[in-house]
Amino acid sequence: MSGRVWNVYLSGEIHSDWREKISQGVAAADLPVVLSSPVTVHKDSDDCGVAIFGREKETFWHDHKAAKLNGIRTRTLIEEADLVVVRFGEKYKQWNAAFDAGYAAALGKPYITLHPEEHDHALKEVDGAASAVARAPNQVVQALVYIIQGKMP
Amino acid sequence: MSGRVWNVYLSGEIHSDWREKISQGVAAADLPVVLSSPVTVHKDSDDCGVAIFGREKETFWHDHKAAKLNGIRTRTLIEEADLVVVRFGEKYKQWNAAFDAGYAAALGKPYITLHPEEHDHALKEVDGAASAVARAPNQVVQALVYIIQGKMP
Amino acid sequence: MSGRVWNVYLSGEIHSDWREKISQGVAAADLPVVLSSPVTVHKDSDDCGVAIFGREKETFWHDHKAAKLNGIRTRTLIEEADLVVVRFGEKYKQWNAAFDAGYAAALGKPYITLHPEEHDHALKEVDGAASAVARAPNQVVQALVYIIQGKMP
Amino acid sequence: MSGRVWNVYLSGEIHSDWREKISQGVAAADLPVVLSSPVTVHKDSDDCGVAIFGREKETFWHDHKAAKLNGIRTRTLIEEADLVVVRFGEKYKQWNAAFDAGYAAALGKPYITLHPEEHDHALKEVDGAASAVARAPNQVVQALVYIIQGKMP
Amino acid sequence: MSGRVWNVYLSGEIHSDWREKISQGVAAADLPVVLSSPVTVHKDSDDCGVAIFGREKETFWHDHKAAKLNGIRTRTLIEEADLVVVRFGEKYKQWNAAFDAGYAAALGKPYITLHPEEHDHALKEVDGAASAVARAPNQVVQALVYIIQGKMP
Amino acid sequence: MSGRVWNVYLSGEIHSDWREKISQGVAAADLPVVLSSPVTVHKDSDDCGVAIFGREKETFWHDHKAAKLNGIRTRTLIEEADLVVVRFGEKYKQWNAAFDAGYAAALGKPYITLHPEEHDHALKEVDGAASAVARAPNQVVQALVYIIQGKMP
Amino acid sequence: MSGRVWNVYLSGEIHSDWREKISQGVAAADLPVVLSSPVTVHKDSDDCGVAIFGREKETFWHDHKAAKLNGIRTRTLIEEADLVVVRFGEKYKQWNAAFDAGYAAALGKPYITLHPEEHDHALKEVDGAASAVARAPNQVVQALVYIIQGKMP
Amino acid sequence: MSGRVWNVYLSGEIHSDWREKISQGVAAADLPVVLSSPVTVHKDSDDCGVAIFGREKETFWHDHKAAKLNGIRTRTLIEEADLVVVRFGEKYKQWNAAFDAGYAAALGKPYITLHPEEHDHALKEVDGAASAVARAPNQVVQALVYIIQGKMP
Repeated sequence: MSGRVWNVYLSGEIHSDWREKISQGVAAADLPVVLSSPVTVHKDSDDCGVAIFGREKETFWHDHKAAKLNGIRTRTLIEEADLVVVRFGEKYKQWNAAFDAGYAAALGKPYITLHPEEHDHALKEVDGAASAVARAPNQVVQALVYIIQGKMP
Repeated sequence: MSGRVWNVYLSGEIHSDWREKISQGVAAADLPVVLSSPVTVHKDSDDCGVAIFGREKETFWHDHKAAKLNGIRTRTLIEEADLVVVRFGEKYKQWNAAFDAGYAAALGKPYITLHPEEHDHALKEVDGAASAVARAPNQVVQALVYIIQGKMP
Repeated sequence: MSGRVWNVYLSGEIHSDWREKISQGVAAADLPVVLSSPVTVHKDSDDCGVAIFGREKETFWHDHKAAKLNGIRTRTLIEEADLVVVRFGEKYKQWNAAFDAGYAAALGKPYITLHPEEHDHALKEVDGAASAVARAPNQVVQALVYIIQGKMP
Repeated sequence: MSGRVWNVYLSGEIHSDWREKISQGVAAADLPVVLSSPVTVHKDSDDCGVAIFGREKETFWHDHKAAKLNGIRTRTLIEEADLVVVRFGEKYKQWNAAFDAGYAAALGKPYITLHPEEHDHALKEVDGAASAVARAPNQVVQALVYIIQGKMP
Repeated sequence: MSGRVWNVYLSGEIHSDWREKISQGVAAADLPVVLSSPVTVHKDSDDCGVAIFGREKETFWHDHKAAKLNGIRTRTLIEEADLVVVRFGEKYKQWNAAFDAGYAAALGKPYITLHPEEHDHALKEVDGAASAVARAPNQVVQALVYIIQGKMP
Repeated sequence: MSGRVWNVYLSGEIHSDWREKISQGVAAADLPVVLSSPVTVHKDSDDCGVAIFGREKETFWHDHKAAKLNGIRTRTLIEEADLVVVRFGEKYKQWNAAFDAGYAAALGKPYITLHPEEHDHALKEVDGAASAVARAPNQVVQALVYIIQGKMP
Repeated sequence: MSGRVWNVYLSGEIHSDWREKISQGVAAADLPVVLSSPVTVHKDSDDCGVAIFGREKETFWHDHKAAKLNGIRTRTLIEEADLVVVRFGEKYKQWNAAFDAGYAAALGKPYITLHPEEHDHALKEVDGAASAVARAPNQVVQALVYIIQGKMP
Repeated sequence: MSGRVWNVYLSGEIHSDWREKISQGVAAADLPVVLSSPVTVHKDSDDCGVAIFGREKETFWHDHKAAKLNGIRTRTLIEEADLVVVRFGEKYKQWNAAFDAGYAAALGKPYITLHPEEHDHALKEVDGAASAVARAPNQVVQALVYIIQGKMP
């Protein structure tokens, strides 16, 4: 598989450093992986629509314009990904993450979920369609090492 | 459109009577609509896998077997639906519902979300890909009357 | 082809009686054709969104809610159609009609345009992807008779 | 997303300098974007068919041969695009532009419309399926900067 | 498979009675098969375009209008077919038939060719993608009896 | 889901009565299910090709003609199925069954495997893509009752 | 479109030098085009199957093995092509060429036919689905120059 | 076809050196081919799931976790392949290999089987959908030389 680059999209929680840990692990293992993600600055992902296309009086449309703009990025990157990692943190609803998992599932695209055990029951359908359930970013890196290089941890 | 039957899948919350309200509205308007839904008995949708295919010691696999079995029903019905209605109630994580919305979106299938205003911000990406956002079951019925019969409320 | 029903979607102009003429022609020829169309009451197709899902202060969002709701109907019916007829009248921009033609073309679905000669040059790309260019509703009916029954006019 | 190149197709109006403005903005921001467009010399896009494949007596077929030849270019580039920008100018019918929007929509490809407010109502269905509505080329550039680099304006 | 109806499209030669023979065989075996075909009146399939949409001075466009109109019927019926039978007679070029075989092949739709041995070499690529090569209409009927009812001849 | 009929294809082993057991269970539960299967008379499924299209001297081509003819039936029915059941018996290679499972998986179509525990390790990849692993035909019936009627065993 | 390479597949006749002429024209115009074609040594394309996978006693299977092997190359290259050119020469049946045209048409891939006027009527359906009909290789080159560079001849 | 790289996935038996032989042949012929394969260390492909994502008490779930993880690699590489080679050795059930063949077939992706004559009858359906049946790795190399370079052995 000389030369093959694997595109991995990192979906979900934006309030912890899980993306950095995966990024560091990928770099340490020298994997031919290109990581991508949504815009992870919370405020920007909320305000981008009105900042670019003009203010809205209603919060609903303020959000709507942002969601549509963010969607251009996220849909394109998920459709291009070989693998999606979907992170559910301890807090927040994180419906985005579940939406992305469903989107990947419908495209027949494999995904790995990453979440603590406490969410297991609530996420059972999302996990049921996943290729694996990880508890820590390092497991995602180990999975990538195995998938791409065939090396065991 | 004489004879056309519209398949509508009702995804999400199973702890209130929103499905019954839509069902009654559809019957009252005499719409050519076939409603479908996941199995809505919570306990059954949790235990179906082990009840049929054998017990599991680990809760995770107990859930997993149920999720995979439920998936046969839900995926088939979503793929067959002309329209999906996705309900987010006041409580619970309801990641299933968001997963189904993402699944529908990736298939290019229209969906209407149904949720209170308090979820607007958390659901902005899910709403962003929706065809409409409803606050009450009656609005879904009115939408069906309009879509199918062209009648205004 | 005993029993086959042909679904024909009639897209475009809503200010003349071309749909009625095709409908009468289909009935006169006793064709196994189900005709469908967008909601053709102009005011309703403008106001349906706010009438059902709530008022908007901005005209833009008033229109937007209607467009999304109308889209549930029109997309479903175009995707189900065996043939789309796209009518461009003498007046108005009728960008909808051209949008529907592009939508049909991308799905590999055949369509016939129906418009006066004066639009020929402006519609050359739309006509270029069409299966035929008709000048009068009767020609559409004759085409259906030929396609379905193999009878010449 | 190191190395990712975004393909952006610029559809529609050929009588103003909006493509140049976007092109300059993209260059100024040093974005990894490849812009493409139809042939924008009006006369050539009208006459290419007969110039290459032989004269036609009828204007209709003169146009037809051009449309089919132009279609090879435009369809290929739209299908390859990550994003389509669809420009409607102040004048002309511009059915091509609406056709391209419908084509993109059916492919599930995101597009941004670019037009003055005066067209809002007539374009409501086309805008309804769009990811954003821009009023000036600079907004399209800002959107690209945000989508690709995650930078706010 | 109670109730299943098999759609079989009969493509190709229009100068012998092979379609009638298959039709009689299907009726004799009481098979749940709906047969369909192009318009088989040679003159009509040549002239339908101009008869409906207006005369052409050039033979090329006369033919073109007919081909596009016939295409609405043939494409729709091939796409709907469960099986395509492609007949190459002793005479004529019959490029249509080979075109239909390629069309079916690209859709992943099974087809059976029906032709004398003398064409074997010239048809090797077309036969190579076929599910079977028949020499007589009766063999096609026997194949349908086997496929649908599991009965041997 | 009034009126919905579920198509279930029964793939694999032809030397035991598992299909009859499922059929009886479906009848006893009065399920709206249409069962289909390959031709299960071993000798016929081997000889059908030459019996219809003419003898072959080489065993390889004798088999080949049968395989291609059987493929028309099996591919069509798998593609039409809502659910595939794939049975691996105690004996024989049964590569067909695994092939059908892979075929279903690539189409995104859910399948249930049915096999004794002794095959678990050898079938791990096939089971890994399955929606459930059953040990007895009755479990398949119970699954259908649950999927279709939402009733627990 | 800096950097874009256009893949063009040259299908059909192998007894004249039309491929060389197009190749020279492409080189002379310095077009970013990669041309591909079937194996054009007639004897090799007939004998490749048996030369590699073993002799056959029957001519039919001799041909069959070649056709299947050639198919790996031709299908892959057609599916990858941006444009297919299909050449019908003065002689031979050339059912391959028509098959390739049908294959391209079903994939929604544009193709240009290249043939003398004498074949116009027999090829009317094949031409009807084509983007252009050329009479000489130079016209194909001119079309490529226009499509890719926007330059008129 | 200057520059085109062919992706070839080598599926199946992992207990003989057939992959090395093909690899050496490809190198010797200097073919522009990238070979890929599943992880071929048997123990690792069994244990990878639990080694990375945590131990399981039940063998079934031990296997399951491995199968799902391996599936990320194998599905991605098969979907990316231009050609799949499927090897069935003298021993073992090798249901994986048949599954991969079915998966490739459903995607319309060509594959070559590689197995001794003794498996011919049991593999007749798998061979029936194959582009060729090889007996030795060298034949696969010769096929690649022919497909890519047009050279006969």
